[in-house]
Amino acid sequence: MLKEINSPKDLKKISRLNLPFLAEEVREEIIKTVAQNGGHLASNLGVVELTIALHYVFNLPDDKIIWDVGHQSYTHKLLTGRFKNFHTLRQHNGIAGFPKVTESKFDSFTTGHSSTSISAACGIAAAAKLTQKKSKTIAVIGDGSLTGGMAYEALNQVGILKKNLVVILNDNDMSISKNVGSLSSFLSRTLSSKYLQGMRNKFGNFLKSLPKIGKDAYSFMKRTEESFKAFVTPGMLFEAFNLDYFGPIDGHNLDHLIDILYNIKELDDPILLHIKTKKGKGFKFAEDDPVYFHGVSSFEYKENNKKKEEDKKDSTPTYTEIFGKTIEELAEKDNTIVAITAAMPEGTGLSNFSKKFPERFFDVGIAEQHGVTFAAGLAISSFKPVVAIYSTFIQRAYDQIVHDVCIESLPVVFAIDRAGIVGEDGVTHQGLFDISFLRCLPNIVIMAPKDENELKRMLISSFTYNLPVAVRYPRGQGVGVKIDNNSKPLEIGKAEIVKEGEKYLILSIGSSVYECLKATTLLKEKNIDPCVVNARFIKPLDENLIISLAKKFPIIITVEEHSIMGGFGSAVLECLQKNGVTNSKVYRIGIDDKFVEHGNQTVLREKYKLDAKGIAEFFLDLKI
Amino acid sequence: MLKEINSPKDLKKISRLNLPFLAEEVREEIIKTVAQNGGHLASNLGVVELTIALHYVFNLPDDKIIWDVGHQSYTHKLLTGRFKNFHTLRQHNGIAGFPKVTESKFDSFTTGHSSTSISAACGIAAAAKLTQKKSKTIAVIGDGSLTGGMAYEALNQVGILKKNLVVILNDNDMSISKNVGSLSSFLSRTLSSKYLQGMRNKFGNFLKSLPKIGKDAYSFMKRTEESFKAFVTPGMLFEAFNLDYFGPIDGHNLDHLIDILYNIKELDDPILLHIKTKKGKGFKFAEDDPVYFHGVSSFEYKENNKKKEEDKKDSTPTYTEIFGKTIEELAEKDNTIVAITAAMPEGTGLSNFSKKFPERFFDVGIAEQHGVTFAAGLAISSFKPVVAIYSTFIQRAYDQIVHDVCIESLPVVFAIDRAGIVGEDGVTHQGLFDISFLRCLPNIVIMAPKDENELKRMLISSFTYNLPVAVRYPRGQGVGVKIDNNSKPLEIGKAEIVKEGEKYLILSIGSSVYECLKATTLLKEKNIDPCVVNARFIKPLDENLIISLAKKFPIIITVEEHSIMGGFGSAVLECLQKNGVTNSKVYRIGIDDKFVEHGNQTVLREKYKLDAKGIAEFFLDLKI
Repeated sequence: MLKEINSPKDLKKISRLNLPFLAEEVREEIIKTVAQNGGHLASNLGVVELTIALHYVFNLPDDKIIWDVGHQSYTHKLLTGRFKNFHTLRQHNGIAGFPKVTESKFDSFTTGHSSTSISAACGIAAAAKLTQKKSKTIAVIGDGSLTGGMAYEALNQVGILKKNLVVILNDNDMSISKNVGSLSSFLSRTLSSKYLQGMRNKFGNFLKSLPKIGKDAYSFMKRTEESFKAFVTPGMLFEAFNLDYFGPIDGHNLDHLIDILYNIKELDDPILLHIKTKKGKGFKFAEDDPVYFHGVSSFEYKENNKKKEEDKKDSTPTYTEIFGKTIEELAEKDNTIVAITAAMPEGTGLSNFSKKFPERFFDVGIAEQHGVTFAAGLAISSFKPVVAIYSTFIQRAYDQIVHDVCIESLPVVFAIDRAGIVGEDGVTHQGLFDISFLRCLPNIVIMAPKDENELKRMLISSFTYNLPVAVRYPRGQGVGVKIDNNSKPLEIGKAEIVKEGEKYLILSIGSSVYECLKATTLLKEKNIDPCVVNARFIKPLDENLIISLAKKFPIIITVEEHSIMGGFGSAVLECLQKNGVTNSKVYRIGIDDKFVEHGNQTVLREKYKLDAKGIAEFFLDLKI
Repeated sequence: MLKEINSPKDLKKISRLNLPFLAEEVREEIIKTVAQNGGHLASNLGVVELTIALHYVFNLPDDKIIWDVGHQSYTHKLLTGRFKNFHTLRQHNGIAGFPKVTESKFDSFTTGHSSTSISAACGIAAAAKLTQKKSKTIAVIGDGSLTGGMAYEALNQVGILKKNLVVILNDNDMSISKNVGSLSSFLSRTLSSKYLQGMRNKFGNFLKSLPKIGKDAYSFMKRTEESFKAFVTPGMLFEAFNLDYFGPIDGHNLDHLIDILYNIKELDDPILLHIKTKKGKGFKFAEDDPVYFHGVSSFEYKENNKKKEEDKKDSTPTYTEIFGKTIEELAEKDNTIVAITAAMPEGTGLSNFSKKFPERFFDVGIAEQHGVTFAAGLAISSFKPVVAIYSTFIQRAYDQIVHDVCIESLPVVFAIDRAGIVGEDGVTHQGLFDISFLRCLPNIVIMAPKDENELKRMLISSFTYNLPVAVRYPRGQGVGVKIDNNSKPLEIGKAEIVKEGEKYLILSIGSSVYECLKATTLLKEKNIDPCVVNARFIKPLDENLIISLAKKFPIIITVEEHSIMGGFGSAVLECLQKNGVTNSKVYRIGIDDKFVEHGNQTVLREKYKLDAKGIAEFFLDLKI
């Protein structure tokens, strides 16, 4: 059936009886493609029925669906004319892993980060109201995304707008990892006895206040625990925000879904539909381990092989692993070290830490803002918090870094994973701005390691500076160097010369250092022999070393995996200007003021000439 | 009494009977001082009793109070040893207008921005728990701050931490302006009939489910509307987050406050105490117009003169006023223009707009994140949203600017008011980073006007580019130029030479342009005659003009009221480097990588040498 669906119109021709078979086909296609290309599996398998039902009932693109995060949009893509190209999922120039307005008129809003859908839906619904359109705007948001505060900011407005807006709460009791927070237990009705107690007291007092009948009802009520629990629903929370609450209903029962969506279609008021789904539904391995199957690399489909590790070419650890290990080692010796993640214990490498030091580990949910200020509260109380957040997501906590950490210069360590080009997750996930937006903040120290061993050393150093510190490091494996057992802290603001040379001075940072070294090997036969510096610190820069070298080299080239607007290269320009060094011609290599699309890291580094070959070519192209 | 209170210990010696008199003295002192120095009046008058009660019952600095926003901390300052210096409030080197950990050991956390208090309190309480301290951590948060999503992120964790944490909800049905959103009506119990209906149905069904007694109780209940309403309390929301809810109680009744705080002191569980207060309490003019008296300049105390306007030296409009007026004019001609504020219709100059175009005006609450993505939703639906947010607060929406606006290059206009040095509000409110953090984002256009007339022209231009646009402009009055009636849009990326000259090239931006011009007058007698360029665009820079001029001038000086790390001057350095211009010596004037404290704008501009005199001195100090 799937083959014949070129748009939602074709879907509507299928009889309701046959839809479950379509769901099976969709699952098959998703599993097969993700097995091949990698991608988000568990979240997509969870919403197959919901997506079919939505497209069956509503009329896109007149009606709009905004997929929160967007990592659950594969079924939507398969039903909106992208089946034929679906095998290119997440590949460079192929179908994106997230909704993208430039990819299809059926994608109403580009997403990738959490908790934006209700806000965008509010805007789209407000526009529809102003132009007197009757179309519906539907935000599909997971219970994990509801831990992001932005969702509440939006809920607070939904009830005011009052128009044709539907929020579908896709409740699987998971965000990426196990969901956290009070709200989670509220949604799952594992209500605290304290809460129930309180409600019962209030209820009892009310009953008692009713003359005559009250007392009897009250004494009876005390014996009916179960039916009382049924009265206290998750809906209360949403009704406080003035949404009409429906549910919870089974999100895998197509018939129920379609019926209730037809009903909702007729209603004008803002509505919250609560559906229960299972992450990984229909693929046993993903159902059993939805955390692993949240985002996966390609895997052996036939044997249902879960071992991503086996795909690795060698045993070189990832930067993430080195981070996790190092923090554990440090925490063993120093019990003031505490670790904070925003819903990503696995992704940031803190899983083991959380098991070893459960009291000193805090998963705050998808709540980067709160996480950073929470860390500031710990830091002002003499603890040493490390906050592990991906580069792209720490954008969410920018004001908190400025206002709650840097102003008072509190010693919070920011472990900024996935800095630079992240690959298949694409444009919404690249980590290409952190140097620019952090560098302008007083008091902060910013480092980037050339390899995994230096990451370890930088982390050790971080806790000795008594300042806000950011360490940015890339996604993926290290370069394969030996890990020192007794690293000494780095002196603050000290760079190193990693290769002597002449005429050309390369100032490089982070993952670009090795690429530069490799480039010099390629350049040897052309008799180009640059000196290569590993800057280590973006802030404070090693001005002494840079200046003394700059005076000797007529050509300086900065290299970074980051935007060149305000990045490391600009810091170098500022340093040269400040010190009045004007004898050298300077070039800056980096990402040139554009957003970087999805594709394999290697492919993208090649395209943007940030690998050894590209860097070497830059030298050969220089017309001097 | 106040004179004799050097620390909270002295307060505790006063008998409870005398505390209301102390409250009177505190009010008197606050009104007198704010009349003299300007400051936050209404919010401070609202929490006099609460603050006295808190210090009476708890023991600071062992117990901690975190004042959300902090604009209500004057009583706290008066009771914690700062009475003697209170007359220096908000003056340079005087008492800060917000809590500041470097000012007093009784200030547990530095605040200034909204909705951070529960997060910081969570961190401090978690630290206390880890070190087995029994101390209490108390977050005092207004109902306005509860519209900020970060507060919910924190609430979601409070119930998990479960220790010695008290949240005091100071509910005055106001944020800065009138509070907005569904939550607001929930707190004030003006519950929607829909909500009550829903609750009653659920409740009715429950009653009916009780055998025998149920039906009678149900039919009776239907007639007891009022007592039913009493059953549905604001506490439900907070109990969903696993906090024990107390209240609402009268926040001006010292006896009740002290009693309930003594009770709360004995409890371990996380608690939410809901108190009702009146903004401006005890000062009739502020009670009647709390919006005006939220933050005021000095005023005539004896005559209770409300007219701040009369203090002005002349009738020159503020940038804010020009912004408001221009947007109204544009909106009259173009009905796709819509305006968004985050709880600051007055502060951003949109009050009139909101009255003229109520349908096209959106106050989203203190919810910058949601506001920006909401605007993106409108923009993708072919509207032209302008989002007016102060420079310091737009830091809150950074990720939304990147992810929801710039990636798809949606035409949202950001009106960034209070950019640069803002004055008395101090370190948490200065707008000194926006150029750096915005400049690295692809697709965005960034402008800053030299005067109020150019602001108008830039706003007109903004809506013609069909791109994300940021216009940054300073706090306060314009320079007094004539406002054109028929401004033409500016060609994108075009600078202007405002004064010809020789040897020295000044490249300046925004409010610094006139200071540079004035500096050249001062320099005339020294035979220094620089050329002055008004860059207008920070992005895209007018590279052609800059390069052609740079080639002719041996000395280039960039001037900006902004951090020099990654700011306008760095953009110029990048431009020169990119174009291989190395003949000039470059200097950059701006704020030199430090946070700027509070004080009068004029005083601070003088101190940081950003006024005409300072700029002129820079030239004289140049050793060439």
